[in-house]
Amino acid sequence: MNGAQSLIRTLVDSGVEVCFANPGTSEMHFVAALDTVPRMRGVLALAEGVVTGAADGYGRMADKPAATLLHLGPGMVNGMANLHNARRAHTPIVNVIGDHALTHKGFDAPLESDIDALTGWTHGWSRTSTDTASVGKDAAEAVAAAREGRVANLVLPADVSWGEGGEPAAEVVPPARATVAADRIAEIAGVLGESTVVLLGAGATRERGLRAASRIAAATGARLFAETFPARIERGAGLPAVDRLGYLAEQVQWQLTGVTHLVLVGAKAPVSFFAYPGKASELTPEGCAVHTLAEVGEDTADALDRLADAVAEGVEPVLQAESRPALPSGDLTPQNWAEVVGALLPEGAIISDEANTSGLMIPMATAGAPRHDVLTLTGGAIGQGLPVAVGAAVACPDRPVVCLQSDGSAMYTISALWTMARENLNVTTILLNNRAYAILRVELTRVGAEGAGPKANSLLDLSTPDMDFVAIATGMGVPATRARTAEELAEQFERALAEPGPHLIEAMVPSLI
Amino acid sequence: MNGAQSLIRTLVDSGVEVCFANPGTSEMHFVAALDTVPRMRGVLALAEGVVTGAADGYGRMADKPAATLLHLGPGMVNGMANLHNARRAHTPIVNVIGDHALTHKGFDAPLESDIDALTGWTHGWSRTSTDTASVGKDAAEAVAAAREGRVANLVLPADVSWGEGGEPAAEVVPPARATVAADRIAEIAGVLGESTVVLLGAGATRERGLRAASRIAAATGARLFAETFPARIERGAGLPAVDRLGYLAEQVQWQLTGVTHLVLVGAKAPVSFFAYPGKASELTPEGCAVHTLAEVGEDTADALDRLADAVAEGVEPVLQAESRPALPSGDLTPQNWAEVVGALLPEGAIISDEANTSGLMIPMATAGAPRHDVLTLTGGAIGQGLPVAVGAAVACPDRPVVCLQSDGSAMYTISALWTMARENLNVTTILLNNRAYAILRVELTRVGAEGAGPKANSLLDLSTPDMDFVAIATGMGVPATRARTAEELAEQFERALAEPGPHLIEAMVPSLI
Repeated sequence: MNGAQSLIRTLVDSGVEVCFANPGTSEMHFVAALDTVPRMRGVLALAEGVVTGAADGYGRMADKPAATLLHLGPGMVNGMANLHNARRAHTPIVNVIGDHALTHKGFDAPLESDIDALTGWTHGWSRTSTDTASVGKDAAEAVAAAREGRVANLVLPADVSWGEGGEPAAEVVPPARATVAADRIAEIAGVLGESTVVLLGAGATRERGLRAASRIAAATGARLFAETFPARIERGAGLPAVDRLGYLAEQVQWQLTGVTHLVLVGAKAPVSFFAYPGKASELTPEGCAVHTLAEVGEDTADALDRLADAVAEGVEPVLQAESRPALPSGDLTPQNWAEVVGALLPEGAIISDEANTSGLMIPMATAGAPRHDVLTLTGGAIGQGLPVAVGAAVACPDRPVVCLQSDGSAMYTISALWTMARENLNVTTILLNNRAYAILRVELTRVGAEGAGPKANSLLDLSTPDMDFVAIATGMGVPATRARTAEELAEQFERALAEPGPHLIEAMVPSLI
Repeated sequence: MNGAQSLIRTLVDSGVEVCFANPGTSEMHFVAALDTVPRMRGVLALAEGVVTGAADGYGRMADKPAATLLHLGPGMVNGMANLHNARRAHTPIVNVIGDHALTHKGFDAPLESDIDALTGWTHGWSRTSTDTASVGKDAAEAVAAAREGRVANLVLPADVSWGEGGEPAAEVVPPARATVAADRIAEIAGVLGESTVVLLGAGATRERGLRAASRIAAATGARLFAETFPARIERGAGLPAVDRLGYLAEQVQWQLTGVTHLVLVGAKAPVSFFAYPGKASELTPEGCAVHTLAEVGEDTADALDRLADAVAEGVEPVLQAESRPALPSGDLTPQNWAEVVGALLPEGAIISDEANTSGLMIPMATAGAPRHDVLTLTGGAIGQGLPVAVGAAVACPDRPVVCLQSDGSAMYTISALWTMARENLNVTTILLNNRAYAILRVELTRVGAEGAGPKANSLLDLSTPDMDFVAIATGMGVPATRARTAEELAEQFERALAEPGPHLIEAMVPSLI
């Protein structure tokens, strides 16, 4: 058995069953070894940003890692923006990064680069396998590290991969998440009240955490928010409804007005996404005390349960009633397209949300839709929406995936559409074509940049030439239609949801600004 | 004057007149400042791999740097694969990497990352501007560093950019390239003969170096090769014809059979692109002495001139006669499409060559075409061809650019087509659609990977679904046609060359393997 075979065998024995891949020559033995391990599924993507973003979406929905296969430093680097998002989402991912043979490293061949600098950038677990016999052990430890909620990077030199003497290793079970100490629960119990906000982050935005948090709020008057960009939030009819903190600093300051105690549950105290001249970076109100119920990596849902038992015995969570907007009519607007989604969103949908400015009304319009999950842009590195939709659909083949995707962001990883077609993934993409980097038009004003004229505005404009996403999607094998009115969008969205496989609807939604 | 204004003023005063950009919020003051400096042209790209690849193409053709504008670490990282290629090409580039305000760095906002790890990976010149008054000076030094043939990274925190008190700085002239010592010339003069190969790299594959090298060869019997992937090679009728070393190790070993002296001129001794089980990494024949006439960074053309004067007084270079293949007919093949290009290539064309396996016959078919430049995939990080064509066309608006682009590689940076349309660049792209990662089919065999079956082969296959590049290009605003026969390709190529602006021809060329 060669190193690659022992590696893949170990991965599947550790529960890793999908490998999103964009391989090159140095990974050919790994590729060949896939045929020797039937339980490992290989999913090809045409760019590494799709590979890593898909692994992120998979990990968020499957609660276990996928593997990626990346081609040396230059392949790794192409996938790192979505690894940045995955890091912010605490998603488990095992990257297998092919490298030159150890015997070849010293020759500075054209693709040689400093892979350690790249793996370090991910702030994850990293190791280079240096002999074939230990590849299996390295892989098992990589999976265990990933399962603690991070990116694990396993660098696989080609000769270690092709060498004979590979030994599959048994699964390494990571330690259970630490539970928080009783005195922390007691401390927090003492500060809950009407001027307290409980901010829900990693793991706390899933059903169990939300139900406990809702009981706490109902019993004490504390208000709940989810962090601005949760990795995964469960919501809709039958679940507690929790608003997210806003993207703009001004929104957050408004949301936290009068708050004297902020309780963090797997979240960080809010800071402005960007800095603005003369404006604060920290958004916690002055004089507000900040308390941590549970850190990222601790068992946030358990902490909320225990806190609820302490302060809300016998109190039930407040659950969202089913309530959908009426189907709107007329030309598409930034508001009515969201109402179409809210009116038609199917039970159990997974929303990959990179709608950006076009999606401002989506949370409100879908609040009372049937139960669904939302995956958001955790790290701000755009080009995440389509790949995350790929991964979510691979993880959950029985659930409809709805990708809400803005035009500018779509173009970073547009080839994700091809993988959707290849794997016949049940993803309906609503491509919001507002013909602009609209967020930057907002930001150009907000940062107070003076002197901006035609050249500046031209760099925020996507209408010269207009992109035709129906043609682009069709060219990658995804059936596509265009909607200019709410009626057209509703009709096309219903049809896409009713048919298996991927669809794209280009929604011609005007820019907010 | 704010920091951004002083930066752009300094760049243009230092000869940097184009900025390829994909900006975000932290770069809005830079974007606004573009309107205050008329001499700086901003060129928008929809993904950072296009930004950096375009800067690479520009630098190779303009012999001076373009600037890029990148959005924090995640924007930088998206552009780094083509910076890797630029590093291998010794291309001058000035990256301006926007960063969070210095006052905001400590808060670990979502887009925060370790930019220093990324700039370090480029092996270039790197600096963070830490106060507004010195941004101009930093920029002038960045340009000077870039002009020595490398990537210069200037990290620009947002508050340094928006702060008042910017001071434009005067151009910093980099030192002239070092000339090689006379005794080195004399040493090399002593080893030239029929079993000597002179290997031409950085700077030596341009007209002056080629003419001198040809005189040397004619006078001494030494043979000439260019390195496998030259940054820029001038060739065609009226110039000395020099073959490149092959991509496959076996080719190089055959080319160097019997060679006892290898003379390097801005090139490295050849090594295999990848390692293969049981095969050598170093390709210099055993017992062959390796001599360096000039290192990268030294004046290679001057060294060749002086060597020619020493050994070839009165000897003229051997120039390629004009000679084109006849226009072929019939279904497209890996050979006849190259003959179409050779038959019709216009005078002064710039070829951006990422045809990979489909392009094996291109060097032969175009050897006697009118004089042209070829830009190749220097670092092996695919996704370079289209962006480099963008940059070459911006640098040389009066010359036709011909991009020979394979399908798999195209998909990494496909949005370059949109920038071609936006800027109305005179680029004719021949998109070789062989529906496969054909090079990997070759490599899967060569590495001796055992056990490869349907799953492995599926990861090398691009036909499920077939991509329709006519639709994709049209969707990005580039007029496109499809050619299935040599006659169709010839007709469409002639028409595309005759019309200004970008065109794409999807050539349905079967895979070699």
